[in-house]
Amino acid sequence: MISANEYFNGTVKSLGYTTANGKSTVGVMEEGDYEFGTSSHETMTVIEGELIAQLPNNAEWKLYKAGESFEIEANARFKVKSVGQTSYLCTYK
Amino acid sequence: MISANEYFNGTVKSLGYTTANGKSTVGVMEEGDYEFGTSSHETMTVIEGELIAQLPNNAEWKLYKAGESFEIEANARFKVKSVGQTSYLCTYK
Repeated sequence: MISANEYFNGTVKSLGYTTANGKSTVGVMEEGDYEFGTSSHETMTVIEGELIAQLPNNAEWKLYKAGESFEIEANARFKVKSVGQTSYLCTYK
Repeated sequence: MISANEYFNGTVKSLGYTTANGKSTVGVMEEGDYEFGTSSHETMTVIEGELIAQLPNNAEWKLYKAGESFEIEANARFKVKSVGQTSYLCTYK
């Protein structure tokens, strides 16, 4: 099953699936500011576009371009600004 | 707008968006055999999983792993076998 999900009134949409590496989602964000919470460890990789992220317990905002990734621990909150529409891969462990 | 699309009875789902590079989709395929048609030039890149593709006017089947891509001309048909669930990026020009 491919699960289709929408968040923030459809401004973030994602597709969930499973590979030999475990559970993943690919998704797209509209331009805007978002705050996400994790239930497990996540690695988020920008596919196209750009994300500016503020990771948990971190005052600094950092720019992530296509191919770049960041990790977030389980049960944490992080903030993301999407510069235009951005596609991303999220892998869970 | 992020467009959500389904093909082949929901066994292929994709999200369409636009960046500075032009129009793109990210999507996921269930394990299975598919034949797609193009209306414009496409570059398909495997995000996770594996695709075995037979490109237009080509008898050979070739395996594409994560990070590998192939190009298809406009107005062509090509066949793909998805090995398990596979996520992909499609960029158009």
